[in-house]
Order: sequence, then structure tokens, then C-alpha cells
Amino acid sequence: MNSSAEKLASLRTALLQKGINLYIIPSSDPHLGEYIPDHWQIINWLTGFTGSAATVIITDTFAGLWTDSRYFIQAEKQLFGSGFEFVKPGLFQRYDFMDFISENVETGGKTGLDGRIFSTDNFRRLQKRLEGKMVSIDTHCDLITSIWTGRPPLPFSLAFDHPVEFSGKERSVKISEVREQMGKQNADYHLLTSIDDIMWLLNIRGNDLKYSPLLLSFALVGAEQILLFIDEAKIPIKLASAFDKIGITILPYDEISEIVSSVTEGHSVLFNPQVTSVELFNSVSKNSRTIEDISIPARLKSIKNKTEIGNIANVMIKDGVALTKFFHWFSSNHGRESMTENSLSDKLIEFRSQQKDFLGSSFATITAFNENSALPHYIPEEGSGVVIGERGMLLVDSGGQYMGGTTDITRTIPVGIPSTQQKMDFTLILKGHINLAMAKFPNGTRGYQLDFIARRAMWGSGMNYAHGTGHGVGYCLNVHEGPQSISPADNKTVIEAGMLTSNEPAIYREGEYGIRIENLILCYEDEETEFGQFMRFDTVSLCYIEKSLIDKSSLDQKEIEWLNKYHSEVYDKISPHLTGEEKIWLKEKTEPL
Amino acid sequence: MNSSAEKLASLRTALLQKGINLYIIPSSDPHLGEYIPDHWQIINWLTGFTGSAATVIITDTFAGLWTDSRYFIQAEKQLFGSGFEFVKPGLFQRYDFMDFISENVETGGKTGLDGRIFSTDNFRRLQKRLEGKMVSIDTHCDLITSIWTGRPPLPFSLAFDHPVEFSGKERSVKISEVREQMGKQNADYHLLTSIDDIMWLLNIRGNDLKYSPLLLSFALVGAEQILLFIDEAKIPIKLASAFDKIGITILPYDEISEIVSSVTEGHSVLFNPQVTSVELFNSVSKNSRTIEDISIPARLKSIKNKTEIGNIANVMIKDGVALTKFFHWFSSNHGRESMTENSLSDKLIEFRSQQKDFLGSSFATITAFNENSALPHYIPEEGSGVVIGERGMLLVDSGGQYMGGTTDITRTIPVGIPSTQQKMDFTLILKGHINLAMAKFPNGTRGYQLDFIARRAMWGSGMNYAHGTGHGVGYCLNVHEGPQSISPADNKTVIEAGMLTSNEPAIYREGEYGIRIENLILCYEDEETEFGQFMRFDTVSLCYIEKSLIDKSSLDQKEIEWLNKYHSEVYDKISPHLTGEEKIWLKEKTEPL
Repeated sequence: MNSSAEKLASLRTALLQKGINLYIIPSSDPHLGEYIPDHWQIINWLTGFTGSAATVIITDTFAGLWTDSRYFIQAEKQLFGSGFEFVKPGLFQRYDFMDFISENVETGGKTGLDGRIFSTDNFRRLQKRLEGKMVSIDTHCDLITSIWTGRPPLPFSLAFDHPVEFSGKERSVKISEVREQMGKQNADYHLLTSIDDIMWLLNIRGNDLKYSPLLLSFALVGAEQILLFIDEAKIPIKLASAFDKIGITILPYDEISEIVSSVTEGHSVLFNPQVTSVELFNSVSKNSRTIEDISIPARLKSIKNKTEIGNIANVMIKDGVALTKFFHWFSSNHGRESMTENSLSDKLIEFRSQQKDFLGSSFATITAFNENSALPHYIPEEGSGVVIGERGMLLVDSGGQYMGGTTDITRTIPVGIPSTQQKMDFTLILKGHINLAMAKFPNGTRGYQLDFIARRAMWGSGMNYAHGTGHGVGYCLNVHEGPQSISPADNKTVIEAGMLTSNEPAIYREGEYGIRIENLILCYEDEETEFGQFMRFDTVSLCYIEKSLIDKSSLDQKEIEWLNKYHSEVYDKISPHLTGEEKIWLKEKTEPL
Repeated sequence: MNSSAEKLASLRTALLQKGINLYIIPSSDPHLGEYIPDHWQIINWLTGFTGSAATVIITDTFAGLWTDSRYFIQAEKQLFGSGFEFVKPGLFQRYDFMDFISENVETGGKTGLDGRIFSTDNFRRLQKRLEGKMVSIDTHCDLITSIWTGRPPLPFSLAFDHPVEFSGKERSVKISEVREQMGKQNADYHLLTSIDDIMWLLNIRGNDLKYSPLLLSFALVGAEQILLFIDEAKIPIKLASAFDKIGITILPYDEISEIVSSVTEGHSVLFNPQVTSVELFNSVSKNSRTIEDISIPARLKSIKNKTEIGNIANVMIKDGVALTKFFHWFSSNHGRESMTENSLSDKLIEFRSQQKDFLGSSFATITAFNENSALPHYIPEEGSGVVIGERGMLLVDSGGQYMGGTTDITRTIPVGIPSTQQKMDFTLILKGHINLAMAKFPNGTRGYQLDFIARRAMWGSGMNYAHGTGHGVGYCLNVHEGPQSISPADNKTVIEAGMLTSNEPAIYREGEYGIRIENLILCYEDEETEFGQFMRFDTVSLCYIEKSLIDKSSLDQKEIEWLNKYHSEVYDKISPHLTGEEKIWLKEKTEPL
């Protein structure tokens, strides 16, 4: 069974047999995070769509896929001829899969989904939308396992220690802090389903996922004990013994529902319904009092500690050196040898690999030329990708996992001489980038209050980008990490000192080119006045910004000063690690505007 | 019984008799809006606090009042010696009365409140906070009526027509539009509890409240009929007959709960739980299916129609003429005759009264000198208020109700020579004001995305104000009107073309002075580009902004151009209605910077 059409036909047969009128497939796994192992890449296997977020709905007459604006163009391309329709919602007026379901379910019908990979939150939204419609929902409906031949197994990798020189805090201290917070929330138990939360808490890392150094696991934190649900073979003896000493008990990964249900009986359990599957929720909520909130590790780990902040500064130098060497190599060799999007990505990873404590890429490198750069999350097809021609825009969005932090940085450079429009676009984005980087704001400010400042110059010229301006960044964990964001969405999280967030305004001209400028910014405390404590950002990413794309006359004095100061810092920190030739090249790239 | 202490003692006796451990008094009436008649001014009567929003909690050992940041300084003053404690929460970390209740209720205890004036939403929040605490809530607990001697009766005034030349739409057309929307939401009935919604829908006005031309009423809109619950004597015969012809039936005001409960039985009812009392909710929800949402008139009336927009433009000229004459009079007579805050307020109302179709002030005029202007919603005590001295800052925030619209405008002027700090503060606020006025943004933008731009300059200097930047404004209705706002709060309402909103950044230096610059801004459609439809604001308020308070070197070229253009428009539109002397004076006030 190879084609999407054949798979769809098999699914429809299964639907008929089970009496299901409408089947929902989310792009998630039992941990409901962003990065999911091949074993759970159902939508990719089924439809050919490779984006990281989507929902598929199948009825006897309809098969469609919903995704977010990052993937609109890609979805249209990849679904062509698959038998699955791409359902494109409006930019702001959403028409999501819930709307479709609500409009298309039949009275008395049955909707099916696999409750192991469907979040409690989404399930409730679904229930609410179906209220009064006399529709039943079967949450034990796995129609995939029986028809997916050759399905990849769950990943296996060994755990390794993330020692205190990197983590900044012993695991026992972190555990105490979590228990203290649990006390404040009157929680006897805290259920952790997000695997980065668990890695952070236990100071371990692994290689179960391609881009995040994590191990598939669940954890239940109690007052005395922690139950860690994980394939036992993944924990080396030394680690297991260290765990044992502080009351961490290892239990089989797939017994989470059963064990949690009995252990928590009669107690209060704190969990986050956004990342807890409806199946797990059902087993927990049966006999215990539930407290719903974002997880405690999610809050604690978003505030980087002093050791982490120090390591991040070092990692940024390594990452900046790799990028600088890459762009120098590109500028020296473009035109002399054949280059494709994928060969460039490989080259960049090669430079990063030369850095100490580098663990791998933090996401699939985006090297996109011309019209491909207009796809915000473009990843070249397997093989070579497009050849880098003589003229155009080259966007490189990449990041690394290091023991001392996670990076995420985007630069857009011209190949040949840029057009006036390209320079105008680049300069407007740069203005937005700089103005967010320079922003000063009172303690208590939420990310959505800061988003405008990165868009203002663009909006003034009738331009915009359909994604957020900034996401939180993990520390040797996921490159996209909550709870904060800088975006138009109504995320109530306050931007606090110690939070690391991206700053990535952009523009996408469909069919022409895209431009994005991304650095990571770290929030810190600025002055305190009679009006309260004020905050600022420190830009921690270190790589020159292409001056040949800047229209200097469109920048004001403060913006020019920011750029010159940034470039001087980049040169000072990066140049000691370069060859003589590279140094001369970077000197010119970072000369004052 | 005169003192707050005596009233508190009586209340505590009543609590004891009823077995209530904790009694909650909200500052609301059965319509749960902002403006409430004297009959329902329980907190004012009880504590002496005159602010418009508060909650009082009484136990046998505690009596305290919560209010919002607008009234912090005022509450501290007015509650001094009253026996009621002012509970001041943090600016951003709230400690609200729910927190207090949640921490202080006793297991097995009984909390009491008057369900006629407690919103369904707040009641649910309360229930949620008390979950698992074994506390019962008595919602039929009116302890006030029996101890309030000489309580003012409910207000009485006659309804008058708000004809189509002002409303822009016949009432029958509005009713059809509301019914069309009800159809889309599958609502058989729509319960309206906000009296401005009802006035808008029926094109009537009245004088039940001091500052809003409204009549106490409820309405239930059905597919064929509208039940209007109102004191029948308030509706003149001609209007009653017009109502009768289009299926509007008048019923007694206080029979709402009973009649609605029986009429809606077995049907679906749309209502807004934020403005529906828990008592009314209980009677509606007993036998019908409920649909909860903001009311349809609330959404429709926020988008001003073409007739309304035309009338607003005319009203702004009248209002601007009154203000100009007032400030001219002040500048000519200050120093010659004695002036107090209250005599100035009276003078300003006198000038407004000379304008055609003026119905009254849209809120209590704030004329505040020096340290009083640091109280965002200061209203002088009965009597004269502070004498306007030789030097200082004078803040005047006032507005009018006209048949063709509602105004709200603030100007701050110097008395004598302003200090450098006053000029710096004023200029930073002006920058914020101008930058919001000039903002361009894509369709779909929410108010919270725009708030920063009004604060940016201030934040950069470590300054801030603890209230929102802009509120929606009614049309010959409430001066504060939803659903939109421009503020840090996560209000999801999109700023749409036709919405009228205030633009009022400010600064308050406690004990010194306050500065606020407020105009009303009307949203309209700007250009459409490949990135979508863009929007802008048109500043519609017309009154000069004091140039002697501006430090020109701190404004950039665009800001100066905006101000000069605004001043030229002010002169062109206002001067034809002035005397020769006033004209010369305004010419100078509006000369280019």
C-alpha cells in the first residue's frame, strides 16, 4: 500500500466497519509536543505533508488537512494529487477543523479519534462544539496501527547526565523547588507529560528525537517519590543508581495510565490539559481531584539561571563562529563550485560540528533560495534542493543543540546585486528587529504588548507577516519552548528576566523571495523608577547582518547606533576564533554603517 | 444611623442573625453596567467611597474595599477613618477580592450576596474559587434594604425618540438585523440586560441616569415580538403606539425574571453572562437552552454607521467650540477673578450648554489642579474644590451627550510657567498620543496590539500609567462602551472600521501633578495591499493642544507634521464659530510648531 489514495481507501473501509462517520487525526504523539518521532508521523505517512502541525479529517465523502500559516504554500504543493484537500483558513478569521466538524457531523453520528494522542484541551473544545448535536465520540479509535505496514518502532537511545556545570542546579534542588510549588498549589502529585520538562527536572538528556536531546518518558512527582515511566534499558546503571538514591523509581513507559490511576486515587493531581492526552486524563481524573495549570517545570525552566545564562553566552560565540565561517566560505566559493540548498545546509552543519559540546541541529536547517525563501518553514526535498543561482535572496535559518544551550538564528543574504525592493523590505524588517531589541518596558508586560514594535515599520508600508515575532527557546532542550511568546496571540505570560526568546520579523513575497532576521534576546532587569521596575532585552546571538541590503537613509540615528554597536560586539567576540582571512572579511562586514 | 461605623455594626448584626460568615457587596445594579442610579449606590452610602467600581467584603473581624488603579489614591483618602480597609493590589500581580475570599472562608461557612446585582460571570468565578471548600453561597441575601433608611427611589424620566436623522437606521431595521444574527446563533430569544443596548435597538433615550441618556429596562427579543420590561409610565403614548405596531410589548420592570422564565421555556436563549445577574440567569436557565455571548446590539452598535459618523463630525465641532471658548475665557480671566476646580467645571458646562442638541455631560467633569490631577478620576468634593493658584498644572477631562453623539476629551494646560519636568512629561505623552493617532495596522488587529505604541516613549524614560490607553465610546449612549479597548488587557475584540475609541495616554506623579491628553479616534479602512487590508485612525476630537508644554526638540519630523496638520484642522473647523477675539487667540494657539 503505497499511495495516499490507497491508504485513504483502507481507512474508509475501517471507518465503515466501525460505524464511524468522521475520523480525526492530529499531528501529535502521547506527549503532545511539537517534535514527534517517526512512529507517530501518521499524517506524513498518510498524506505526504511534512509540516510539523496539522489535523486531518476523513469522512466517507471528504478528506482534508488543516495547518497553520507557516505551511500554507507547502501544504498546497504537497497535497496536490494526494486525495486530501488543503483547507486554507483566513489569516485572521479562522475556519478550523472544529468548525468543519461542527458543520458536518450528522445527528446520531459517531466521531472517532485515538485518545492516546488527542489532548484533553482539544477534546473539550470538540465536545463543546458538538454540544446538543447528539454525536458520540469514540476515543479508543486507533485505525492506523492495523493498516500501517512497516511502521517505524518507537526510538531508542541512552540517557546521559546533564551535569551541574551546564544545568546550574542539582536535580535534587530542582525537585525540591517543584515540590515547594506543588505545596502552594495544594497538589499531592504533579503529572509531567512534556518530555523536556522531565529532562530539565532530572538533569538528563538523550537522543530519541532528531532535533531535541530528549527521551520519551512520563513522570509523576509525589512528595517523597518520583515515578519515571521510561524504557528501563535507556537508563545506564550509574544514572539509575543516582536516581534510586533520591527516590526516583523507574517504571515501564506504557504502564503510565494504569499506574497513575491507582497511585493518585484519593489525592490531588496537578497537570496541564494542553499536553495531557484525553486517555491519560480519563485515567487520572477517575478517582482523584484534578488541578489544571501549566506545569511547574515549564514555568521554572523558562527563567534561565546564572550558570545557564553564562553558558548561553559561550554557546552563542561558538554558534556565531560556525555561521561566520559558513558565510565566509559561501562568499569565497559561490560561483566557483556548484551549490544547492541541501549542500549548503550540510556545509553549515559541518561548521557547527567543529564546535565543542555540539550535539546536533536544533531543527531542520532551512536553506532557501529565492521563491523557496518565501515559504516560512521551507525544507528542501530529499536530495539536493534548488541550485543556488547567480542572483537572488538566500535565507538560512538554523540552530544547534549544545550542552550549554540551544541556538536559533536566521540571516538573509543577497546573491549578486539586490533589487531596490529587496533592500527596502530588508531595511523595514531590520527596523522592526532593532526596535524590539531596544525595547524597554515595565515588569509585568506580556509578549503580545511587544509584538507591534517589530511590525510597526512594515505595517506603515502595508506589509506584514503571518506568524509570531518570537518564541521561547529551551536550554539544551526544545528550540521552541513555552510559556512566553511575542506575537499577536493573547498569551498571558509575562516576559520575565531570564527568559530567552527569539526576535524574528520577516516578510514573504510569494513566488519571489522571503527575508527574515532572527536573533535570540534575553530579558533582564533595567532601572527601577517611581513607576516600577523596567526591563530590557540583551541580544545574545552573534552574527553580522548583511549591510549591502540596508538602505541607510531609512534608519534613524538610534537604529544605526544599535547596529554599529551590535556589529562591534560581534567582531570582538567572534574574530578571536577566525583565521586571518576570515577576520579581514568579518572586519569589513561589521564596519560601522 | 450616619457613620460608616454604625452602618457596619448594623450589617454585622444582620450577618450574625442570618448565619452569614462573609458578605459581598458589589458596586452594581441589576443591569451590571458602569453607571448606576443612587438607589443602588450601596458602597457609597456604606463607606463614603465615591469611585465607580469597587467591591466590599465584610466578615465579623474584617471590612475591606477593593477597587481598580484609577481610584487607589482616592480610596485611601475616602476610606480613612471609615472602619473599612482599602485593599490595594499590586499593579500587575492582582490580589483581588476573590483571593481574599478563597483564603478566608471557613469550611462549612456561608457566604452571602444579593443575586440581583451580582453578575453570572463573577458568581461562577466565585464558585470556582470556593470549589472543594465546603462553603455554601446564599444568593438571596439583601441585608441592605432593611437598614438603609431614606434610600433614594429608582429614577423616573420620560422616554423620547432618537429619530433616524440621528440614529441613521429605523428601529425596525435594527430589530431585523438583530434577528438575523440571532438566526445565525440559533437563538430563539435574545435577553438584553444592558440598557444602552436596548436604547440603541429601540431608538429611544431618556434621563434615568445622570450622565447617560438611558432608561432602566430589560428586553427579550423573540422572532416576532419584543418584550420590553420598563415602568410603563415612562413611555409616552405616541411612542407606545409606534412600539405596538412593530410588536414591542411593554411589561412591568420588576417582572422580568418571572415572565422570561415562562416565555423562554423549551427555547434557546442568547445572553451575556457578564451583564446578566445570577438571579436572572437562574430563572432563564431553568427550562431553556442557554447560548452565552456578548449581546448582538453590543457588537452592532460599536460600528458607527455613516449617518452617525457624519453627526459625530458635527458634534465634535460643537464640543470643540465649547472647549475653545472655555480655555480662552480661562486664559483671559485667570488672575482677575477667583476660580476653583468646581467653578471651572460649571463654566465649562455652561459653554457646552450653549451648543445645539446638547443633552448634558457624559460623565462628571474632572477639573483637577496640581496634586489633584494626579488622581486619574478625581472629582472635587461637593462645594468648591481647590482654588486654582498662580502656578501649576490644570487637567480638564470632560464630555457631552448630544443627540448626534457622545464626546470625551482631556486637555492639560499650564498655569504660569511650566517646569522642565512638566514639559518633558507632556512631550512624552504627546508622542504616545500622536503615534497611536498615526498608527497603521492590518485588519484583524486587536486593541492590545496597539497599546504599546502609546506607551513606548514613556517606557523608554521609565514612566508608565496604570490604566488602559483607550475605551470604546457610545453614540448618545454611555461614554465608556465595549466591546473594544486599547489596553494591556487581553481583550480579543478586533478594532474595526467605524469603531470610535479614546486615545488617552497619561502620567500621574503622586502628590505633584497629572497630565493626560485625550482625543477620540475613529477607525477607517486605509489601503489594501498584497498583505491584506490596512486600517488607520482619524482623530475626530477638535481642540488645540498646549504648545507651551511641548519640548519641540523631542518630537521627530512626522510627529511635528501631525501636530501642525491637526492644529490647522482645529483652526479651520472651530474658528468660524468664535468671536473675533477668540479667533485671534486660537490662531496663535494653533500656529505651526
